[in-house]
Amino acid sequence: MFNKIAIFGVGLIGGSFSLALKSAGAVGQVAGVGRSPEVLARAKALGIVDRTCANAAEALEDADLVLIAAPVAQTGAILSSIAPHLRPGVVVTDAGSTKSDVVAAARAALGSKIGQFVPGHPIAGREQNGPEAAIADLYAGKKAVLTPLPENFPIDVERVAGAWRRCGAIIHQLSAEDHDRVFAAVSHLPHLLAYALVDDIARKPHADLLFQYAASGFRDFTRIAGSSPEMWRDISLANRPALLSELDAYIARLGEVRERLAAADGAALETVYANAQRARQGWIRTIEAAEQQNRQGGD
Amino acid sequence: MFNKIAIFGVGLIGGSFSLALKSAGAVGQVAGVGRSPEVLARAKALGIVDRTCANAAEALEDADLVLIAAPVAQTGAILSSIAPHLRPGVVVTDAGSTKSDVVAAARAALGSKIGQFVPGHPIAGREQNGPEAAIADLYAGKKAVLTPLPENFPIDVERVAGAWRRCGAIIHQLSAEDHDRVFAAVSHLPHLLAYALVDDIARKPHADLLFQYAASGFRDFTRIAGSSPEMWRDISLANRPALLSELDAYIARLGEVRERLAAADGAALETVYANAQRARQGWIRTIEAAEQQNRQGGD
Repeated sequence: MFNKIAIFGVGLIGGSFSLALKSAGAVGQVAGVGRSPEVLARAKALGIVDRTCANAAEALEDADLVLIAAPVAQTGAILSSIAPHLRPGVVVTDAGSTKSDVVAAARAALGSKIGQFVPGHPIAGREQNGPEAAIADLYAGKKAVLTPLPENFPIDVERVAGAWRRCGAIIHQLSAEDHDRVFAAVSHLPHLLAYALVDDIARKPHADLLFQYAASGFRDFTRIAGSSPEMWRDISLANRPALLSELDAYIARLGEVRERLAAADGAALETVYANAQRARQGWIRTIEAAEQQNRQGGD
Repeated sequence: MFNKIAIFGVGLIGGSFSLALKSAGAVGQVAGVGRSPEVLARAKALGIVDRTCANAAEALEDADLVLIAAPVAQTGAILSSIAPHLRPGVVVTDAGSTKSDVVAAARAALGSKIGQFVPGHPIAGREQNGPEAAIADLYAGKKAVLTPLPENFPIDVERVAGAWRRCGAIIHQLSAEDHDRVFAAVSHLPHLLAYALVDDIARKPHADLLFQYAASGFRDFTRIAGSSPEMWRDISLANRPALLSELDAYIARLGEVRERLAAADGAALETVYANAQRARQGWIRTIEAAEQQNRQGGD
């Protein structure tokens, strides 16, 4: 149970965190901070926050937990505004899609108070954004990845984990470096590939003809290219080393597949395709089994 | 109205063609031919075909329309088996995903009878395959692309178009070359990219960790990597020149995006992402408007 939580960024991610904790009866009061007074007012009208605050000093007064749910590029500035008002015993966490850069920004902003920051990343989202998109069960059955620092006290890590568990999330722990490598491969790279494909097609002189015949396979493949360009620019830059490494590995692999195609080596192509199909089918079976277990367990 | 239709390949595509025409009361009898007697028997039991035939001679007897709905690599052999039994006035069409190679195979197999072959490609599919997956409304509101030859009589093109219209499809015409360039870009390349990504991830030593954190964006992006490896091997080989050309253009574009990422050029990355998002949103609006119109029109 938290007395007061301060949330920086009251959109889909921060708003859903608040609604989930309120719905679980796990929080007394929620204070919201944000760049746009208008968005804050909407969050208050929607019952996401109990009060809106003009600055970190006001928001942190009596707060025992702080969540930063703003675009990753803003994390450093927000942490700097928090630092002078961060009393001992208060825990700060975030919801950013990248972690190594957030940790570096947090070390710079918080200095000797770095032990009070427990980095996190809930793996959940929706097509919509903003406070209107926030829902109490966004995190139910989803993963929340924590990447604790050597300076964290276990009790503080557990408090952050406990908050996410009350939201219905399943807690995972990774190092910040592993987190960034993993998400570069399974999330950031696919976004970049989908954006590059649609951009490539849109620039061709016969783009209209091409889009006319694009069908459901193309629609699914490119769904992530409908995501926010600003957000993905920030993520691409924040996770640049890992993303570059994954991209280079993929370009090399694509070059190999290209050579097999150029050589009309049907057997080699089929090996690549069949390996992919088999791996994906195995993965889907694992997901479905886990979903089944979640439904039955309800723990 | 057709007296008798012969269908080579009674799976999802051929089976749905038969069920749609039967349901429209547009065909007297449907004869099925295929490599597997067991599959043919299932198609008969499901009411997809009225009789099963052991060979082309038997199937073509009294037939006025022939559909080839087998994997594209088999089209040449099937047309060769049909050629000796192809009487004047009978029209042959196909449902292959590639057209230039099919046209070349048809010219070789049919010789002076090439004018009786009207190449086609219905743009429809389901995750499942085989006669059990066939449904009468698979083609309702979907595109059927015809790529007529200079040797075709307009009346024969119209007969094939008429059959697809009775299935509920909307007729488009392209040259075989344009067809193959278009589908290389919006269908064959995305399949190759999705297969290559899943294959790449599956081969990494930490593949299990990666798949554990793959979420809904990855699931949609890679859905097409669940498709039949044999079918996509054949399509890749059949449309090799156009697919290689699209793949090379994409690899070049990806190299440019890589340089922008390496240079941490956020503005340039955002331009690519925003252009892609805008193009995709425009495309989705067009699709949705067309779907709306189809529902209201009911023509």
